[in-house]
Amino acid sequence: MAQEKEVASGMEWRITMADGSSEALAPDAGFAKIAWLALKGLIGGLVLKVWKFLKKAWDLGHNEPRKVIHCLKVGMALTVVSVFYYMRPLYEGVGGNAMWAVMTVVVVFENNVGATLCKSINRICGTFLAGFLAIGIHWIANRSGEEFEPFITGISVFLLASAATFSRFIPSVKIRFDYGIMIFILTFSLVSVSGYRVDKLLDMAGQRISTIIIGTSLCIIITVVICPIWAGEELYMLITRNMDKLAGSLDGCVAEYFNDSGGFADSDKESDKKALGYKCVLSSKGTEEAMANFARWEPAHGRFNFRHPWKQYLKIGASMRDCAYCIEALNGCVNSENEAPEFTKKHISNTAIKVSSDSSMVIKELAKTMKTMKKSSTIDFLVGEMNNAVLELQEDLKSLPTLFIPQPLQEAECPENKSTEQDSKKAVPLMEIIPLVTLASLLIEIVSRIEGMVSAVEELAGLAEFKSVDDRKTNQNQTINKVVPDHQGGLQIQRV
Amino acid sequence: MAQEKEVASGMEWRITMADGSSEALAPDAGFAKIAWLALKGLIGGLVLKVWKFLKKAWDLGHNEPRKVIHCLKVGMALTVVSVFYYMRPLYEGVGGNAMWAVMTVVVVFENNVGATLCKSINRICGTFLAGFLAIGIHWIANRSGEEFEPFITGISVFLLASAATFSRFIPSVKIRFDYGIMIFILTFSLVSVSGYRVDKLLDMAGQRISTIIIGTSLCIIITVVICPIWAGEELYMLITRNMDKLAGSLDGCVAEYFNDSGGFADSDKESDKKALGYKCVLSSKGTEEAMANFARWEPAHGRFNFRHPWKQYLKIGASMRDCAYCIEALNGCVNSENEAPEFTKKHISNTAIKVSSDSSMVIKELAKTMKTMKKSSTIDFLVGEMNNAVLELQEDLKSLPTLFIPQPLQEAECPENKSTEQDSKKAVPLMEIIPLVTLASLLIEIVSRIEGMVSAVEELAGLAEFKSVDDRKTNQNQTINKVVPDHQGGLQIQRV
Repeated sequence: MAQEKEVASGMEWRITMADGSSEALAPDAGFAKIAWLALKGLIGGLVLKVWKFLKKAWDLGHNEPRKVIHCLKVGMALTVVSVFYYMRPLYEGVGGNAMWAVMTVVVVFENNVGATLCKSINRICGTFLAGFLAIGIHWIANRSGEEFEPFITGISVFLLASAATFSRFIPSVKIRFDYGIMIFILTFSLVSVSGYRVDKLLDMAGQRISTIIIGTSLCIIITVVICPIWAGEELYMLITRNMDKLAGSLDGCVAEYFNDSGGFADSDKESDKKALGYKCVLSSKGTEEAMANFARWEPAHGRFNFRHPWKQYLKIGASMRDCAYCIEALNGCVNSENEAPEFTKKHISNTAIKVSSDSSMVIKELAKTMKTMKKSSTIDFLVGEMNNAVLELQEDLKSLPTLFIPQPLQEAECPENKSTEQDSKKAVPLMEIIPLVTLASLLIEIVSRIEGMVSAVEELAGLAEFKSVDDRKTNQNQTINKVVPDHQGGLQIQRV
Repeated sequence: MAQEKEVASGMEWRITMADGSSEALAPDAGFAKIAWLALKGLIGGLVLKVWKFLKKAWDLGHNEPRKVIHCLKVGMALTVVSVFYYMRPLYEGVGGNAMWAVMTVVVVFENNVGATLCKSINRICGTFLAGFLAIGIHWIANRSGEEFEPFITGISVFLLASAATFSRFIPSVKIRFDYGIMIFILTFSLVSVSGYRVDKLLDMAGQRISTIIIGTSLCIIITVVICPIWAGEELYMLITRNMDKLAGSLDGCVAEYFNDSGGFADSDKESDKKALGYKCVLSSKGTEEAMANFARWEPAHGRFNFRHPWKQYLKIGASMRDCAYCIEALNGCVNSENEAPEFTKKHISNTAIKVSSDSSMVIKELAKTMKTMKKSSTIDFLVGEMNNAVLELQEDLKSLPTLFIPQPLQEAECPENKSTEQDSKKAVPLMEIIPLVTLASLLIEIVSRIEGMVSAVEELAGLAEFKSVDDRKTNQNQTINKVVPDHQGGLQIQRV
């Protein structure tokens, strides 16, 4: 807006110049005006940009107040750890190493509890391991005389840093210990090249560890006590929210096709947005995996136990994505230019809408099962309904061919004869009902994939011991048998 | 293997016990044997586990030697920076702050050049900005007397840390400056609470900055000079590789359906793996985005300019995913239980295979265009061929209905009459050709999505100024007009 105004004013000034060139002072006044306009434009543009940025930030904060709370928590943690500096007795106690507490808070404090815990534990373990390994090697290097010391230190740093960096590429290690290994490399390098004597190093190591423990405990306390954001709950919310979206867009797609004849332009924005809800499911894999990974570090919270089967959520997510791929293809077919004749559409519209509404009912029921964490009593019934609707749809499809054979045909005995022009003119050609058949076929495929979702959710209900809806605890007490590694078993026998 | 052996031996021993209970010494010998076996099992199990881990690591290194090289590079950088400690003049020069060089190397050194550059620049800028801001606030706090100092420091830390943390949530900021903001918070907190006098702080700040610059330059030199891994090239390779996979799986899916009658069990593993290549495309979004983000930090390298349109690669990736969604649905239909009768399959098999092979030819040609970075002379022809094949497929579908009207029908005048049992018994019902129609329809949808890929690649060819295949430079010199922000224009006028 401000830019436009500026441009308009500039134009106006130029026109004035071209018109009235009688006054000698005009150019001077013009430059002053240019300068003033430019300044105005500059300030206006800047204000506009800052305003837009602030507006965006405000919207973000307004929509997700928990993010604002997280920021305030970070500010608080840092302020608390800074106050630490002003308490001289404590400050002297850790010998100026209080810096590490600040650093720990900045680096370790994450948006959710799981991530904070993961980083804290990684940091403590990494520092601890690397510190004592480095002190050991330092001791050996010291013993071997001044000539060899740099070599031993250098080689050990080279080998350990290379090996540790390599281990960060191994997926199973990377998922859990990536940060810990970085801290391991960092601490090992710092200690082994610091050039101090071993006894001073031990002092320093103790101080480092204690400051890190102070920093991490502060982070953990603040992140758990003040409005905690649990990675597990985030994952749980994400999955249930996505289920609702999936149900909505399945309904929306099919209804849109049959209501306004597949036309995309005149459908209102709201239903359009709803129909495209499945797109969130398509791209949620990364978030789901990260959340499930962090959730494993979290203690019991809310309705979730410590060993809640978070991995099963990934399976549910994958089955939802399978479903979403088909909805995406369905959406493509629905919006394609090929249009089936109105009367054939009417022929199967009722059953197709029934299939889609029944299957979205099943998805909604699954979402409800997850939300209430109670086994659904109606899911079997709903799945049955859905399958019945599919059978009905198949029946309707079977009766479709009769619609486009209006008159007896003569030349049908010879299947090789492709030039049956007179036939195809009389009948509705197969070409025209292709979109309809594809839609039906994809709906059937979607139904079979929804069954995959149902079994994934049922598996979760078993693993997480969801209660039955009538609140009686189910008989099947499926305790998760932890597989004890073989050599531990061996150890026990050895002790006997 | 070792475990099994142990168990087997244990069993044997028990049987021996049950049989020969004549000797009194048997239990003692038994316990010794148990202990020995347990020890053997323990060691065996451990060795096996370590062996398996090493095997996995070896395979990883063997398959991707560049990862091994990266690890050696990290080791080298750390060793070099450690040697720094042993050069006393240099060490004294930075007043014991050499620690920061080590830390910088550990934290900043990333797998590819773009990521290393991004982190380096972020680290330097973040430290610089935060350092001087903190010194300013420190100076104000010092002036305002001992009572207010902790309050001013505390409040400034709280406000800045909160605001900076919040800005990390804004997507446009997060993508580029996430690490820089973390370093900003870290440095600001460290400096503002360090409790030194301002002149000493300035000294320290200079040393910090210089050590960080030493560390980052070392990282950048090593990462660029020794076997550089460019994020841009990785992205480029990923996209072209995925294109080949997409073409292969499109071919594979359709061929599989028509060759061995959709049977999945007896198809060999190799073609199976090829047909599932599209799955890589489905899940590559995250990697593509990360790589494109890092690639923007990279200087000109190889065949890529500094301002190579990396964002366009994301568009190509998105159009490939659109295609892959449809192939996923196609794959689902191909493997469904419904089986079309053999003779109807034969009727369209040739044209369907032609459509799939033509469209995979188009994809391969796109991959070739990208690999050679030359505009394809045949792509228009190939797209035309593909569209012709689609027309042929549609013709074949049109002639399909004539196949299943073997005899004249009498009751076809009444469309509502669903009980035309005698008709459907004589004709091949529509139900049976549904999988075939769906396959054809999805193929047509895939073709239209491939056209999206073609236009995305053509846009890239325009933006990146690909040469024509006959090596004459194209006439259209599409220079990328950088949009100059409005207030800068205003600034220039002001200067005049």
